[in-house]
Amino acid sequence: MSSLTSPQISAEQSAREADLVATVVASFDGAEDARLKQLMQALTRHLHAFVREVRLTESEWEKAIAFLTDCGHITNDRRQEFILLSDILGISMQTVAVNNEAYANATEATVFGPFFVADAPRIDIGGDISGGAPGQPCWIEGSVKDTEGNPIPGARIEVWEADEDGFYDVQYTDDRVAGRAYLHSDADGNYAFWGLTPTPYPIPYDGPVGKLLEAVGRSPMRASHLHFMVTAPGARTLVTHIFVRGDELLSRDSVFGVKDSLIYDFEQHAPSEAAPDGRSNAGSWASTRFDIVLAPASEPAS
Amino acid sequence: MSSLTSPQISAEQSAREADLVATVVASFDGAEDARLKQLMQALTRHLHAFVREVRLTESEWEKAIAFLTDCGHITNDRRQEFILLSDILGISMQTVAVNNEAYANATEATVFGPFFVADAPRIDIGGDISGGAPGQPCWIEGSVKDTEGNPIPGARIEVWEADEDGFYDVQYTDDRVAGRAYLHSDADGNYAFWGLTPTPYPIPYDGPVGKLLEAVGRSPMRASHLHFMVTAPGARTLVTHIFVRGDELLSRDSVFGVKDSLIYDFEQHAPSEAAPDGRSNAGSWASTRFDIVLAPASEPAS
Ligand SMILES: [Fe+2]
Ligand SMILES: [Fe+2]
Repeated sequence: MSSLTSPQISAEQSAREADLVATVVASFDGAEDARLKQLMQALTRHLHAFVREVRLTESEWEKAIAFLTDCGHITNDRRQEFILLSDILGISMQTVAVNNEAYANATEATVFGPFFVADAPRIDIGGDISGGAPGQPCWIEGSVKDTEGNPIPGARIEVWEADEDGFYDVQYTDDRVAGRAYLHSDADGNYAFWGLTPTPYPIPYDGPVGKLLEAVGRSPMRASHLHFMVTAPGARTLVTHIFVRGDELLSRDSVFGVKDSLIYDFEQHAPSEAAPDGRSNAGSWASTRFDIVLAPASEPAS
Repeated sequence: MSSLTSPQISAEQSAREADLVATVVASFDGAEDARLKQLMQALTRHLHAFVREVRLTESEWEKAIAFLTDCGHITNDRRQEFILLSDILGISMQTVAVNNEAYANATEATVFGPFFVADAPRIDIGGDISGGAPGQPCWIEGSVKDTEGNPIPGARIEVWEADEDGFYDVQYTDDRVAGRAYLHSDADGNYAFWGLTPTPYPIPYDGPVGKLLEAVGRSPMRASHLHFMVTAPGARTLVTHIFVRGDELLSRDSVFGVKDSLIYDFEQHAPSEAAPDGRSNAGSWASTRFDIVLAPASEPAS
């Protein structure tokens, strides 16, 4: 129980509250879907425990209803406030943790985020995902292997990132497609592409989730990152990011997505320095290497 | 833990999950509003406990996001799906329970529901709230007193109910005002009005909450009831219903609103029988008596 409230609750009152929980739990007894029954009964128990522990006031309940309503009304095809809410409560990251248990040397997963788009353009190896998005060019290369060290050719690698102004293409009102693409690993399991050096950006904070963050004194900023989703037959799908070593936001990422194993060195290069693929860059550029290891599909956690 | 899942979770995995909870809880440490900090930290703990206990899958998480999104999109000025969700999970009723602890012989509270409207018409004592809504006429009378037995004159009594087709006025697309009004208790603390004999109705079930109820084999039906909200200076505001003795739905009200002390006898009368106020009724009519006892405002629970 919190130290803020230590309500004197009578045995009669406590029994009434517990009886109500039991009645609601029992109302789901007839559900044919055993998993749905389990989920609803557990949700009931945990939500009631919250209400009882904090002695939620009716005005707080009204504010919660209004908050969820506001989240619903700002959500559309391009804005997903409920995912943001899940993210800033660490629920998204906890779901990732529960579903991606440690397996040998497999690359760790992190949050999916609300900005993935299913129909990104395809590029060849060495292609450029930026699509005109502003930012410092960055060469990203690496391999895709299984946990035994065997290369995985033909893995589908989806990548997406914000531009240097901190926005994903879908956050603009034009229909631009930029900063996202997919490619396949080659016969040796290798991949490479031009993207942008990741920069920090805030999660959208002009809605109810942003107001909540402000009210509790938290920043909406995310540590600089580049999103990956990697799929291959027989492998567990990997949804992850790579982060930039040295970013001051690594320790206070607004959605709790940072893991030490996902922090990489991004090397800076002068414009005159030759790029790995011979491309000439008008300005400075960066490079990094991200070797991906996929766990087998449907394997029990080690 | 549920009997359905008994996952083998390694100590390493369990520590990772617990560390994440601690990190999210700590992210609220800087909140200036101590109560908001308490609420967000407790919510974090309970929601994470739910996710960890049920081992929520990513596809279940996605369904939950889609469910909340659907609730948001169906919610408008006349439809409040988040209140319905709170209601069918018993969260509304638990909030009522926490905030209306037993006090002497004060009338028990129950759920507010989503159909209250703030600017209902005023009627005099003996007036009719039905506004043309179809249903059997019902004479409702009673007194408003404090817990010492003193009459409370001038108490504001808001009443609202569904018509015999099971709909509140605000559920129609015209702008009718029917089945709702407010009146004041007289100098002796008494009140009386014509309403409709309450009939069962479903909560709106054409949205995501209705689909959820169907999936778990629960009925959306509410036991027959008439809503009251009673306010008076120095008294705790009472939000309650009266229910109809004999209604077969009393034991499985979809929002868990029924309390034994709120079940009343509704007496049936032939058309020819004289009404208490001398009004002649073309058909049969009913009557009941509801004596209201208000707890003092801001008194500690007994
Ligand atoms: Fe992102
Ligand atoms: Fe109702």
